Amino acid sequence: NTVSVGLLTVSDGCFQRLTTDTSGACVRNLINEGSHLKATIIVEDCVPDEMDAIHTILTKWCDELNVNLIFTLGGTGFSPRDVTPEATKTIIERDAPGLSLAMIKASLDITPFAMLSRPVCGIRKQSLIINLPGSPKAVKECFHIVSPSLQHAVDLITGRKEVAETHK
Amino acid sequence: NTVSVGLLTVSDGCFQRLTTDTSGACVRNLINEGSHLKATIIVEDCVPDEMDAIHTILTKWCDELNVNLIFTLGGTGFSPRDVTPEATKTIIERDAPGLSLAMIKASLDITPFAMLSRPVCGIRKQSLIINLPGSPKAVKECFHIVSPSLQHAVDLITGRKEVAETHK
Amino acid sequence: NTVSVGLLTVSDGCFQRLTTDTSGACVRNLINEGSHLKATIIVEDCVPDEMDAIHTILTKWCDELNVNLIFTLGGTGFSPRDVTPEATKTIIERDAPGLSLAMIKASLDITPFAMLSRPVCGIRKQSLIINLPGSPKAVKECFHIVSPSLQHAVDLITGRKEVAETHK
Ligand code: NA
Repeated sequence: NTVSVGLLTVSDGCFQRLTTDTSGACVRNLINEGSHLKATIIVEDCVPDEMDAIHTILTKWCDELNVNLIFTLGGTGFSPRDVTPEATKTIIERDAPGLSLAMIKASLDITPFAMLSRPVCGIRKQSLIINLPGSPKAVKECFHIVSPSLQHAVDLITGRKEVAETHK
Repeated sequence: NTVSVGLLTVSDGCFQRLTTDTSGACVRNLINEGSHLKATIIVEDCVPDEMDAIHTILTKWCDELNVNLIFTLGGTGFSPRDVTPEATKTIIERDAPGLSLAMIKASLDITPFAMLSRPVCGIRKQSLIINLPGSPKAVKECFHIVSPSLQHAVDLITGRKEVAETHK
Repeated sequence: NTVSVGLLTVSDGCFQRLTTDTSGACVRNLINEGSHLKATIIVEDCVPDEMDAIHTILTKWCDELNVNLIFTLGGTGFSPRDVTPEATKTIIERDAPGLSLAMIKASLDITPFAMLSRPVCGIRKQSLIINLPGSPKAVKECFHIVSPSLQHAVDLITGRKEVAETHK
């Protein structure tokens, strides 16, 4: 029941090899620590802050690779080039606003600037997509908020586990 | 000024009479206890987890029966068949995200799995629609969160009461 | 680096000069106090609770006047005429749900009726639009929640400041 993970860094600077992808390294470490989540990173890439580029690669990872869990990194802020949430909305079939709410709520306890984050989370087919922020510190905080729910989330999406509900 | 209520159970299992609708019974009890809300259940039904079925019955309850307050039960999770929020979005004319936020926020204090709930709340004409979860325990928690605001909400939607604002 | 501000009161009563715009006066005072935010109000107006009227004036303020920060006042509740959030959604290019979440979350600590507020916040070109409520008391509470982040928000939107991120 290992969860397959995709990591997509969204950053003009990383794409042009002007900066190092420290956030990608950060998530890689968090996943490999393996608390809460038994996961394997099966695909990693970097795209510029462009709607089309983000849309195309996310669609491929969901529809062809059937990646269980996709983290995007960066592009969720207020800068003119930040369009990761907008691109993510064009991909997802079902919103998962509780994940975004949990991340923002927890981040607000740390800094008021958390109200400027705009993460979108949602489901496409058998894949859960989660927008994480771009800085390693914020990535770590947000990952720790959502990670306790992710194994269960993927089990439900993929139909591996029926929900423990009277209604089912 | 009694509030008219509709209860819609969304569940393949209940529709096929494979399981008992314990959540419906739970909401019925909560409403009949009558704390915060003077309400009468005027219509109850059960539909399978299908967009069309949910859309059709909600439209009828809003547009023909003018039900003040509609609770859906179930179908708000991450399973492939959970589409109650998506169906609800096709019905509502005005979002009421504060109700969803209040339910998720309070549920997060109980369990991290609350971040996997995806309730949508909103207004269509003179009706307020609220997605409740599918398990009796979660239904009860969420009902107690929203119920203090519902009499006032219905009074405003139906124009029974003008808001106490300088602007009006 | 002074932030240019637009104040739009949305209210049938104010438009018809039946009531005084006490919320507009309230925000004016809060801005002129100047804590957190070095801002100048460059435009003020009042429109009735009509989608078209709200849409038209907000578009003009964003696209022709390039106002950095627009506060709407009123029209975010459950009354049949409350359509400010719906009009705002037709204008914004990028959602800023963290600002709405922060306002509702803080207001819920004061009153359960906060779950009946429906503020929308978002970005259009170089402008940030924020829906504030209609009563002076609620306006003040919400303004104090968002104001610590607004100078930074405008600096990012207008490209005056690059975000302090490894990814940029
Ligand atoms: Na939305």
